[in-house]
Amino acid sequence: MKVYLDCIPCFIRQALQAVRFCTDNVDEQERILRKILEKVLSMSWDITPPEMAHIIHGTIRERFGEDPYKIVKKQSNDVALSLVDWMRDFIGENGLDGAVRLAIAGNIIDFAVVDEVIIGESVKKLVNIKPVVYEIESLESSLRDGGSILYFADNAGEVVFDKVFIEYVRLNYQVKKISFVVKGGPIINDATVQDVEYIGLNGLEDVEILEISNGDDGTGPDRNSDEVKKWIKSHDIVISKGQANYEGLNELSGIFFMLVVKCKLVADDVGTKVGDVVLYHSK
Amino acid sequence: MKVYLDCIPCFIRQALQAVRFCTDNVDEQERILRKILEKVLSMSWDITPPEMAHIIHGTIRERFGEDPYKIVKKQSNDVALSLVDWMRDFIGENGLDGAVRLAIAGNIIDFAVVDEVIIGESVKKLVNIKPVVYEIESLESSLRDGGSILYFADNAGEVVFDKVFIEYVRLNYQVKKISFVVKGGPIINDATVQDVEYIGLNGLEDVEILEISNGDDGTGPDRNSDEVKKWIKSHDIVISKGQANYEGLNELSGIFFMLVVKCKLVADDVGTKVGDVVLYHSK
Repeated sequence: MKVYLDCIPCFIRQALQAVRFCTDNVDEQERILRKILEKVLSMSWDITPPEMAHIIHGTIRERFGEDPYKIVKKQSNDVALSLVDWMRDFIGENGLDGAVRLAIAGNIIDFAVVDEVIIGESVKKLVNIKPVVYEIESLESSLRDGGSILYFADNAGEVVFDKVFIEYVRLNYQVKKISFVVKGGPIINDATVQDVEYIGLNGLEDVEILEISNGDDGTGPDRNSDEVKKWIKSHDIVISKGQANYEGLNELSGIFFMLVVKCKLVADDVGTKVGDVVLYHSK
Repeated sequence: MKVYLDCIPCFIRQALQAVRFCTDNVDEQERILRKILEKVLSMSWDITPPEMAHIIHGTIRERFGEDPYKIVKKQSNDVALSLVDWMRDFIGENGLDGAVRLAIAGNIIDFAVVDEVIIGESVKKLVNIKPVVYEIESLESSLRDGGSILYFADNAGEVVFDKVFIEYVRLNYQVKKISFVVKGGPIINDATVQDVEYIGLNGLEDVEILEISNGDDGTGPDRNSDEVKKWIKSHDIVISKGQANYEGLNELSGIFFMLVVKCKLVADDVGTKVGDVVLYHSK
């Protein structure tokens, strides 16, 4: 997917939020927002949303020399960890269906509101929403065949839900190896190896952590590189979480996309509405 | 109120919508959006939202030589006119309280969705929402004292609700004259004299139409000019509809502000939440 014109104001809004995580000084916020508008004007818009995100958020990280989302990512992880007992009970009652619904519901975590009660309520509401696209029979059949899983993770906090999903799958299916893909450096609230270590996902047996680029040099291969295509080919099952991975991988076949649809443009592409819960197996 | 940094992405989003009313050509849309970003960068942000709106929307009107909102304003008027019988019944049952709730509910009309069913449902839901700030006793007492009313209108479509409100007030209180203030030229979906004529508000006895500037030269005095302050002083009751009039007049005392709060920044200023219904008498 390429950037739509609607992405421009949305990226500017998101950038302002990131700037505010770094400084309370309104004059400084204005200076950086102006710099971001200059960047947006100077770049081609014939790129993908992740490419644009890299340029915009790289500008903010450069200015502040740190990850603006560091604190909210830790908060998201902590809130999600506080829900683990409830998650395990839910899966105990609902099996694979519960594990999948939870993994998708974790995609709702919004770093703008990191509050245990609010996130807990959102997630508990979301797991009970009937998915609009829900190809769980395909997923179950693939899991029964066993083998290896390549799992493209999305956000901090959400990775706790992924961990609980993976624990369930490892216990109930003949899965040999799980390659868990995170970002090789900070970009928005995407999970990195630090998040995975913090929540203990790297401690699971047969789980390997892979890193793809956040857009900076030396942070791993691009999601759409030949190397990542090789990873995809060398695994039996590929699971992709969230919108950005959908935008990057939706032209490939045989991938299980799990996401909460958060934006009208992705909704139009998937054929659903904003807020819908989706497990889609690409043809 | 001055522009907040949050207004920047919001104005860009709104401008994109206006551009799309003018052309379906995506390349042309991108060219104009880029021009708008350049304008936003070149202007001071130490101005009011209406001043920024004038610069941005003036750029679009200049490019297309017409009012981008012309069609949606007519649609809004038509939809509101189709609800007049229901409005009169509602006021018949609820008196001044009903007339005020309707006048405020008309402020919800959103030009992005001009659909009879959707607007009708929104309005019918909104008139039943308990206002958070609702100084109707002050308004009733002022109306009982009678005299003249200066009425700052907001949007096309909404003016139909204002008309029904004014009809009720003229019939039930000793009001001598009503000066109805619209924009002297197009700006977003604000009502102009064309809208007032289209819905027949200028045909009411004792109603005079006044025009304030849309930002272009020769379209009338500014809302915050000495001339408009004279209008305010020379009327017994002043009613202000909507957010932009609130932003412009909220520092004056003795004004009745009627609005649906649509933006977090105005909500913080009024001390309410987004979506709240307000009749506020400034001190």
